[in-house]
Amino acid sequence: MGIGQREDIQHAYARVRGRSLEIAGPLSDEDCCAQSMPDASPIKWHLAHTTWFFETFILEPHEAGFAPFHPAFRVLFNSYYNGVGAKHPRPQRGLLTRPSLDEVRAYRADVDRRIAQLVAGNPAPEIAALVELGLQHEQQHQELMLTDVKHLLAQNPLFPAYSSQHLPQDLEAGAPQGASSWIEFDGGLAEIGYGGNGFCFDNELPRHSTYIAPFELASRLVTNGEYREFIEAGGYRDPALWLAEGWDRVCTGELLHPLYWIDAGNGAWDEFTLHGVQPLDAERPVTHLSLYEADAYARWRGARLPTEAEWEFAARQATLAGGALHPAAANGDGIQQMFGACWQWTSSSYAPYPGYAPAPGAIGEYNGKFMVNQYVLRGSSCATPDGHARASYRNFFPAGARWQFTGVRLAR
Amino acid sequence: MGIGQREDIQHAYARVRGRSLEIAGPLSDEDCCAQSMPDASPIKWHLAHTTWFFETFILEPHEAGFAPFHPAFRVLFNSYYNGVGAKHPRPQRGLLTRPSLDEVRAYRADVDRRIAQLVAGNPAPEIAALVELGLQHEQQHQELMLTDVKHLLAQNPLFPAYSSQHLPQDLEAGAPQGASSWIEFDGGLAEIGYGGNGFCFDNELPRHSTYIAPFELASRLVTNGEYREFIEAGGYRDPALWLAEGWDRVCTGELLHPLYWIDAGNGAWDEFTLHGVQPLDAERPVTHLSLYEADAYARWRGARLPTEAEWEFAARQATLAGGALHPAAANGDGIQQMFGACWQWTSSSYAPYPGYAPAPGAIGEYNGKFMVNQYVLRGSSCATPDGHARASYRNFFPAGARWQFTGVRLAR
Amino acid sequence: MGIGQREDIQHAYARVRGRSLEIAGPLSDEDCCAQSMPDASPIKWHLAHTTWFFETFILEPHEAGFAPFHPAFRVLFNSYYNGVGAKHPRPQRGLLTRPSLDEVRAYRADVDRRIAQLVAGNPAPEIAALVELGLQHEQQHQELMLTDVKHLLAQNPLFPAYSSQHLPQDLEAGAPQGASSWIEFDGGLAEIGYGGNGFCFDNELPRHSTYIAPFELASRLVTNGEYREFIEAGGYRDPALWLAEGWDRVCTGELLHPLYWIDAGNGAWDEFTLHGVQPLDAERPVTHLSLYEADAYARWRGARLPTEAEWEFAARQATLAGGALHPAAANGDGIQQMFGACWQWTSSSYAPYPGYAPAPGAIGEYNGKFMVNQYVLRGSSCATPDGHARASYRNFFPAGARWQFTGVRLAR
Amino acid sequence: MGIGQREDIQHAYARVRGRSLEIAGPLSDEDCCAQSMPDASPIKWHLAHTTWFFETFILEPHEAGFAPFHPAFRVLFNSYYNGVGAKHPRPQRGLLTRPSLDEVRAYRADVDRRIAQLVAGNPAPEIAALVELGLQHEQQHQELMLTDVKHLLAQNPLFPAYSSQHLPQDLEAGAPQGASSWIEFDGGLAEIGYGGNGFCFDNELPRHSTYIAPFELASRLVTNGEYREFIEAGGYRDPALWLAEGWDRVCTGELLHPLYWIDAGNGAWDEFTLHGVQPLDAERPVTHLSLYEADAYARWRGARLPTEAEWEFAARQATLAGGALHPAAANGDGIQQMFGACWQWTSSSYAPYPGYAPAPGAIGEYNGKFMVNQYVLRGSSCATPDGHARASYRNFFPAGARWQFTGVRLAR
Repeated sequence: MGIGQREDIQHAYARVRGRSLEIAGPLSDEDCCAQSMPDASPIKWHLAHTTWFFETFILEPHEAGFAPFHPAFRVLFNSYYNGVGAKHPRPQRGLLTRPSLDEVRAYRADVDRRIAQLVAGNPAPEIAALVELGLQHEQQHQELMLTDVKHLLAQNPLFPAYSSQHLPQDLEAGAPQGASSWIEFDGGLAEIGYGGNGFCFDNELPRHSTYIAPFELASRLVTNGEYREFIEAGGYRDPALWLAEGWDRVCTGELLHPLYWIDAGNGAWDEFTLHGVQPLDAERPVTHLSLYEADAYARWRGARLPTEAEWEFAARQATLAGGALHPAAANGDGIQQMFGACWQWTSSSYAPYPGYAPAPGAIGEYNGKFMVNQYVLRGSSCATPDGHARASYRNFFPAGARWQFTGVRLAR
Repeated sequence: MGIGQREDIQHAYARVRGRSLEIAGPLSDEDCCAQSMPDASPIKWHLAHTTWFFETFILEPHEAGFAPFHPAFRVLFNSYYNGVGAKHPRPQRGLLTRPSLDEVRAYRADVDRRIAQLVAGNPAPEIAALVELGLQHEQQHQELMLTDVKHLLAQNPLFPAYSSQHLPQDLEAGAPQGASSWIEFDGGLAEIGYGGNGFCFDNELPRHSTYIAPFELASRLVTNGEYREFIEAGGYRDPALWLAEGWDRVCTGELLHPLYWIDAGNGAWDEFTLHGVQPLDAERPVTHLSLYEADAYARWRGARLPTEAEWEFAARQATLAGGALHPAAANGDGIQQMFGACWQWTSSSYAPYPGYAPAPGAIGEYNGKFMVNQYVLRGSSCATPDGHARASYRNFFPAGARWQFTGVRLAR
Repeated sequence: MGIGQREDIQHAYARVRGRSLEIAGPLSDEDCCAQSMPDASPIKWHLAHTTWFFETFILEPHEAGFAPFHPAFRVLFNSYYNGVGAKHPRPQRGLLTRPSLDEVRAYRADVDRRIAQLVAGNPAPEIAALVELGLQHEQQHQELMLTDVKHLLAQNPLFPAYSSQHLPQDLEAGAPQGASSWIEFDGGLAEIGYGGNGFCFDNELPRHSTYIAPFELASRLVTNGEYREFIEAGGYRDPALWLAEGWDRVCTGELLHPLYWIDAGNGAWDEFTLHGVQPLDAERPVTHLSLYEADAYARWRGARLPTEAEWEFAARQATLAGGALHPAAANGDGIQQMFGACWQWTSSSYAPYPGYAPAPGAIGEYNGKFMVNQYVLRGSSCATPDGHARASYRNFFPAGARWQFTGVRLAR
Repeated sequence: MGIGQREDIQHAYARVRGRSLEIAGPLSDEDCCAQSMPDASPIKWHLAHTTWFFETFILEPHEAGFAPFHPAFRVLFNSYYNGVGAKHPRPQRGLLTRPSLDEVRAYRADVDRRIAQLVAGNPAPEIAALVELGLQHEQQHQELMLTDVKHLLAQNPLFPAYSSQHLPQDLEAGAPQGASSWIEFDGGLAEIGYGGNGFCFDNELPRHSTYIAPFELASRLVTNGEYREFIEAGGYRDPALWLAEGWDRVCTGELLHPLYWIDAGNGAWDEFTLHGVQPLDAERPVTHLSLYEADAYARWRGARLPTEAEWEFAARQATLAGGALHPAAANGDGIQQMFGACWQWTSSSYAPYPGYAPAPGAIGEYNGKFMVNQYVLRGSSCATPDGHARASYRNFFPAGARWQFTGVRLAR
């Protein structure tokens, strides 16, 4: 379910904001403070930054008599908005032992109270739109909270589980499916980009025409078992399969196998998950791959990665909003795992759509300034909040990023 | 004039190979040995590697009783072909004081003699095609020889000229033009990629359909004078104009002004050229820009960079082979400086065309494995050999590269 | 008061071990987990590692039926003892959010209980000696806990205080003294190194003869006010004052002023202390200097740093055990601040005394293997536990280290 | 034979300056231009810098109507004298393809002519002293020319010889000797430092008393064969033998065997020398060791490195000036290879002697500012010019330096 579409904004706000605290629930204060690498952030920082977003972009311009919760937070919890001013250096987020987690919870409560006052009754459309953007933003961070804490826990030789309890969602990358088949698509001149009436990010606009040659997509994602065949066939030893940059990373030892695989000896593999170390499940989708690995695997299979236009074209034919299969779109076996298993690398660099224009002001830094040296991932993952993704959604990461739930759907 | 189209292969071989030695002519043995950065190579290395290409890909498989000129050269002068075997580390090319420049000249003469024997009479089409590829390859290195030696000489506080004599071509980036205007293009479903009968690189294939929305291109390149206005207006101090990666490089001091501009005080600028230091010519095209700078400039002007499809679409309408203006294509003032001035950054990442397939074997490493994290440049520069470029030609460099003759044509 | 000299070992154990927990007392779980740089360690890690020392070097060989508290701790909390086996990488100590601080406290309690059993009654001399070493080791870490947490808190733009309460000891670097004077020493053939019957580290042995030329020492440490004169006179801008390595660090901006000084504008300075930011006290000793700064300051004053032999010679004449002034040693005003204010840089590299032999086994790695590229500091600081230091004590750090309480006593 | 002692200054000048050109004789222009690492310099740079020394410190202050040979050379060929002004960045010396080698030779000839005019007749003592310093300085660079070019050629997979001709001196590290024995020395209160009437560097002064405990030195240097035993016994795999910094370098793969040893398979070793690759001579001294390796080897043998005072004490007893053995000093077998084979690592850090005072002005930067984090080497090597070294001579390098001819004499 999307935000604010079938529920009022107050309920959506409470639901989404509450979910962030639920994610932090199984974690100690220490777990919430540490930062495992510059690309990841502490859980506490996520909790504060998402609050900062509401305070800075909604309360500050729209609350009568606005006073900041804490004047230093404007800098401490600014992620990358130059238009807002200075920002604490990203690699040092893990050194912020103060404010404490309790103080950040108090910060959240205070901002929540003030936002509730602001949106009570019938808020102005401009404010409602900003609240919706803030909630979508917070949902993006909810996924990062899970992937960042997974990366943190994976650095610990004890390999602790995020939670041994029943989790609110399945945090492994997709359930097993049957055999894979090729689904044919005719292509042609297609409309790409968001065309509905609900929320979308600016990078999904404008909807525009693009020409797509006929293509085929695999009916499901590549599995751990299939990827293991690639390893066993020497895939990581054959430079002919790799992009040059990828091969350089193989040679330095950075790329040896999917990020969280653990060699268990005698050809067996374990995998570190949010539930702790588990035997590798050959039937589930392979995940935590770089674009380099996804691309090399595809080449080894005589296939390739899809473009983002191909992926969206297929998704639009095959799905209803929210990821359910549209029966009429099924071609033979039908197409599976478009959403909710792993983000799917495409061969498309992250670039503006024709006529793209970011919003004016600091909020316009949300997407546009990252449109270089990143690649688009489509779909959604097991860590994506329900209802957050859609067929036109454009996720993006550098080609070497592996700590997200990133997998492979083959094309040809 | 292209290679081998209107002249026989023997003449083309002699002409192109001789040109490399001409480029090295004004340089000392020392000049030819040094390497200014890992991305650049010594002139001597270029002379040897282009010879290695003929020896390895033509003589070795096709010469009866082949014996290498020197067994160690197979490794020393292999640039990046993993299929050929080991290669000398790129950052250490400048430490190869042996073989001497004279020995490399002897290597060239020996291979030239043997290639001449092989192609005497009526060579097999496979061999003729490889010779043509070798000559096109050598022409690419001829441009690199000029840009690499320019970078080397620029590191020297004496700022020595490559040559004070009349050079065989104008080695500054394009002659002055008049005022710039916007040329309108209708776009539509267009065919992109090489479609002729002559030579092209594999990355220009296959020719394929793509949809292009209506667009406008500037009639000429951005000039030094126009770019100076950007600097004077604080372009390098306003993060709102920059891609995030570009702004990071501004903040570290890497990007302050075009690569070879020299602050002459009191608002005046000089420029280091292959002819030595000269006062900046406000009317000539600005060059030696990164994609980040090109993109920031365009944003400041309320414009953008063209896509590679837009550029090719316009070039095909506007030009005859070789860069002359097609009168019928002129829209208003006509479009200028598509070729022969500066390579023109596009917003298109370097990616395979639909259906792209590299050649089998080591020669297939020529282009395909670099198709990640690079951006396409179109046109050609003052350093490109005559007849080398064409409308479908795809040059590519990382977004931060500045030592090529890289400039900006605006689109909107 | 030293350990175990006038109190029994059980009381000493309880006192010293309890003190570590007192130091952690004002800190949150988050404060105790973070690591500000590879050279520093988290408080929690200090609490665990000092416990590991007792478990590994005493319980493991001497406790009947020894079983480890947790098998992974042998690696996690090994600092640098190759003889014990693998060790967790030092720069990643701050990522160990598990075990929790509570679990580490339980680890401490368990080992304390077992050590108490082992030393109940009349422990074997070998065990008693190891317990004493373990307590001395823990006292060294107590000082590091304070300097490491100071460094951590200093990275936080909020500049939080370690504690706003009355602290168990004065945690600023020494009380103001009067004017400085030169104290003359005759030198001659002197005995250097520990010569008593109590505890000392192996690096203080063997006591040996060394020849010392006549010299003078300043009667007190250099003050903040005096050092500010050096800054105001351009000391950080004149290469003639600096060792070449130091000047390199000045040029990169690493060295601008003492580590925790904060430019308050208009020529005023604040200083970050464990009590928070405070106005710089001109009368207190300057501290948190590198050897490079100490040496440059001395040169600017026409003086030099003492050798460690000079310092020990002077301390032996001037002090009773524990740092009290020996009246007969007073030369004019007497010598002050030898202990308890700041560690004092010497010009002596950390090297073995003639005939030095480390203990056999892993415990022998305690000191000897660090005897290269480190410089000796003498005395003790405001953060040194009472009774820990003595005239023969040899502290050592690299020349660039600044996060200890390091100051300057001039010699000539 | 020392400089200027038994020959007049004109002859000494011509002899020493001519020797630098002889060393460059076997090398091409390319060989003379390249720089293999920041610590090494191109031969051409050495030829120019040594000339710069005479021009800057003698001609500039003392020649009537002085005009520089080339104004830019003041910066280009300044090594590290901040007092002279700016300097070209050291890591970029290899990019100076201009001035050419021929121009540098012309620079040398010009300065030689002008120095000859200045010292014709009876030069002022101040000038004569500076000329002597310049010649001693040039001799130091003559040794560096050989070690730097050896390092450069060793980077080339062709492993070219510096010269296949008969060289003016034996450029391998010392001739074989017989068995090693221990020579006993009584020690006591000794005078250390230069005490003669000839030339010495400022770091050899002042002569001063030091106390030396009784010690023993090995009668000759450690041989390749003996060091090979250390390797075969697993010396590079046992952390207990190593200083911690050394072991870190073993673990990164930086230290595997002496710098120029080449594994020839089946337990055999070759060695790269200035004469090219040769089978390892088990009887010659092992050389190109870091202090870490020298120290680990000594520990493995149950010995240690000497202090510089022990070494000088022994050398003074055992030698006449110039390195000949003093018969009366022979203890049993006599002491060998003190000079002319390898520089010998000592355990002494490079520090000022008591009362050391550098010369005023820029020339005072010659030695003093390097007195931190360096270790003293004593003796001289096969690459040291005849007559350059003496018993009080203090060479110094960082503990990790290996490209000098550095070996081991054991002490205990």
